[in-house]
Amino acid sequence: MKAYHEMTKEELAEEIKVLRDKYHDFQALDLHLDMSRGKPCKEQLDLSMGMMDILNSDSDLICDDGTDCRNYGVLSGIEEAKVLLGDMMENNPDNIIIYGNSSLNVMFDTVSRAMTHGIMGNTPWCQLDKVKFLCPVPGYDRHFAITEYFGIEMINVPMTPEGPDMDIVEKLVAEDESIKGIWCVPKYSNPQGYSYSTNTVRRFAKLKPAASDFRIFWDNAYGIHHLYPDHHDHILEILAACKRAGNPDLVYKFSSTSKITFPGSGIAALATSRNNLEDIEKQLKIQTIGHDKVNQLRHSRFFGDIHGMVLHMHKHAAILRPKFQAVDQILEEQLGGLGIGEWTKPYGGYFVSFDSLPGCAKEIVSLCKKAGVVMTKAGATFPYGKDPQDSNIRIAPSYPPIDELKTAMRLFTLVVRLVSARKLYSEM
Amino acid sequence: MKAYHEMTKEELAEEIKVLRDKYHDFQALDLHLDMSRGKPCKEQLDLSMGMMDILNSDSDLICDDGTDCRNYGVLSGIEEAKVLLGDMMENNPDNIIIYGNSSLNVMFDTVSRAMTHGIMGNTPWCQLDKVKFLCPVPGYDRHFAITEYFGIEMINVPMTPEGPDMDIVEKLVAEDESIKGIWCVPKYSNPQGYSYSTNTVRRFAKLKPAASDFRIFWDNAYGIHHLYPDHHDHILEILAACKRAGNPDLVYKFSSTSKITFPGSGIAALATSRNNLEDIEKQLKIQTIGHDKVNQLRHSRFFGDIHGMVLHMHKHAAILRPKFQAVDQILEEQLGGLGIGEWTKPYGGYFVSFDSLPGCAKEIVSLCKKAGVVMTKAGATFPYGKDPQDSNIRIAPSYPPIDELKTAMRLFTLVVRLVSARKLYSEM
Repeated sequence: MKAYHEMTKEELAEEIKVLRDKYHDFQALDLHLDMSRGKPCKEQLDLSMGMMDILNSDSDLICDDGTDCRNYGVLSGIEEAKVLLGDMMENNPDNIIIYGNSSLNVMFDTVSRAMTHGIMGNTPWCQLDKVKFLCPVPGYDRHFAITEYFGIEMINVPMTPEGPDMDIVEKLVAEDESIKGIWCVPKYSNPQGYSYSTNTVRRFAKLKPAASDFRIFWDNAYGIHHLYPDHHDHILEILAACKRAGNPDLVYKFSSTSKITFPGSGIAALATSRNNLEDIEKQLKIQTIGHDKVNQLRHSRFFGDIHGMVLHMHKHAAILRPKFQAVDQILEEQLGGLGIGEWTKPYGGYFVSFDSLPGCAKEIVSLCKKAGVVMTKAGATFPYGKDPQDSNIRIAPSYPPIDELKTAMRLFTLVVRLVSARKLYSEM
Repeated sequence: MKAYHEMTKEELAEEIKVLRDKYHDFQALDLHLDMSRGKPCKEQLDLSMGMMDILNSDSDLICDDGTDCRNYGVLSGIEEAKVLLGDMMENNPDNIIIYGNSSLNVMFDTVSRAMTHGIMGNTPWCQLDKVKFLCPVPGYDRHFAITEYFGIEMINVPMTPEGPDMDIVEKLVAEDESIKGIWCVPKYSNPQGYSYSTNTVRRFAKLKPAASDFRIFWDNAYGIHHLYPDHHDHILEILAACKRAGNPDLVYKFSSTSKITFPGSGIAALATSRNNLEDIEKQLKIQTIGHDKVNQLRHSRFFGDIHGMVLHMHKHAAILRPKFQAVDQILEEQLGGLGIGEWTKPYGGYFVSFDSLPGCAKEIVSLCKKAGVVMTKAGATFPYGKDPQDSNIRIAPSYPPIDELKTAMRLFTLVVRLVSARKLYSEM
């Protein structure tokens, strides 16, 4: 098929007519499909049902160091959970705090603590005239929501397949003391599925921020969430890189088991330097007596060790891979060569990022919704919900059953064609 | 035996000699007993082991409204958990948010949110010159630690067996706009075990604070934690009282299952008005996608309903009652009539409050520790750890096995006598 920009006005008019009819056919199907969030599907959840058998009334709920996990205490988490998540995060268990069920909550609390108490003796951010964060875009809406909630000014930094544009990052953090952080999803990024190159991570580790309380918020949400057995992205471990670069305190690294066991009922963790940990624990001991140790024990015993977790992730991959393949295949079949959209082909994570012609994303998402398919809101991948190009759309293939996913993607590609054709036609 | 203040100098000298010898005998026992915290004992934890069987790999983890509890979502908690904790807290499920494992964390977050964002449109506390809290004393050290952490000035208000001195509370909140809150443990208070009278609760509900963002922090930690089958303290429900008094938004009420199932692995809840809930949810939806619904489901199904929980609490009472009775009996046997100490006789909760002669508490706790019995730190029951009288000591009978508890109490009473006798002798 001809690329749309090579079509004559008459050809485009005819294309629009055909597409509109097909769109009406979709509307008649009365679809109710949701592709808006990166939620695991039922089959993925079923993979962890064995975890419900790990502890029963005959179990010994004493952890390795003799602590009764049923009682109060152990602020930073039980040792076996630290070892397991340490192996998962490629960090020393001594550099880890195990939290409750949500790494998002840990990130929120980290920003909140910096607002009220500052970082390692620095002025609390709430006492500063201006606090700014760098936001690689497109990125994760819930990150941006935290900084927006605290009135932190967000500055867009373009993403590349190697990670954020480091020329810009280096320049901005070096010259502006009010820049206090940057949101990163370094591996299988949300939404593009890009993994930061070794060079990018090294440049992060070597940053020379003007602000001594600048921190990298390194959300390694998809560290072991590969899709293919024969291709695993690998990124340099950031804590080690920072330490080698003489910047040991530069990074907070977050992770969780949310997309490994049960989202919302897993365990979250933060890895950082001893200095940062001590700073954090001053607050943590006021905030809580400790997190859910029984659930820490349940997770530790369910996996046994990191190898158990890796084998478990193979099962997730087997469920997710056909879905990502279907998405790519339908995008290629329906849009390939038309010059009206580009999309990523990630090796892991939860998303495919789609870029339409400028000025089309909102309309695409809106028309999908009117035909019963809910996509992530256009603009959601940018701070303040504002995509300057109005072109990025996040596709989340994980949740719908594959037949529904295919239907949704057929509608999506149809709508992309319709909106693009109309736009090109209107500009003629 | 003669009261100490009626003894001659010679009699006191002889008493001190005898007591010192006995103290040395205790030291020779090489004790290692801990009575410092209100932790349930092993037998109490065993009561909830059945909870570990409630969910297994054959279980349906779908809650009543059809939500799969294994996946993301449901910000304010699943309905059946709201109903259960609503019945426990005597509140409408619609007025409740179910949180994670720690009500202390909920209180911390509530203060933190008021600091950074203010309450219902009022100025964030961090932007005010001065923020003050009223602290009924003696009280709970972890409450005081939160307000101290946020730089909130704490003002002592004396406790009475009816609750805080309401003449003082009414006067202070009416005249000082910088007073933004008061910490309350209204039932079986920590450490005295007092329950607020109906009149006290009514006066709380009718408060006319100068600050529109003044809130009562009502930590109903021991709402169903009775010790005796035939005597249950009852307190007026504060949300309903506030609503009737035309002050619907005046109170945040906190509770959890920490001392019902497993401390640290239970579920916490906050009950408050719809206005306050909406204010809170604006933050909560940024902070997390939701709390641990699997654990909410586990708790709901384990108890079935509030009657199941009440029956469960009878079993706790049967374990705790003999311990509280032993404490009272040994205090009475060893100190009765000596005029050197007073203590409370609670009908529920986790503590007995002991008041020594002024100026003796620190020395008593120190000598206990030197003989191997760790008590709650003297002063801990007051803001900033400063007991102006140096006389209050919190006794926590729950954790030690009863034989150890008796040994610890014999040492404690011996030390009270020794320190008191020395003090009286030195003042002669």
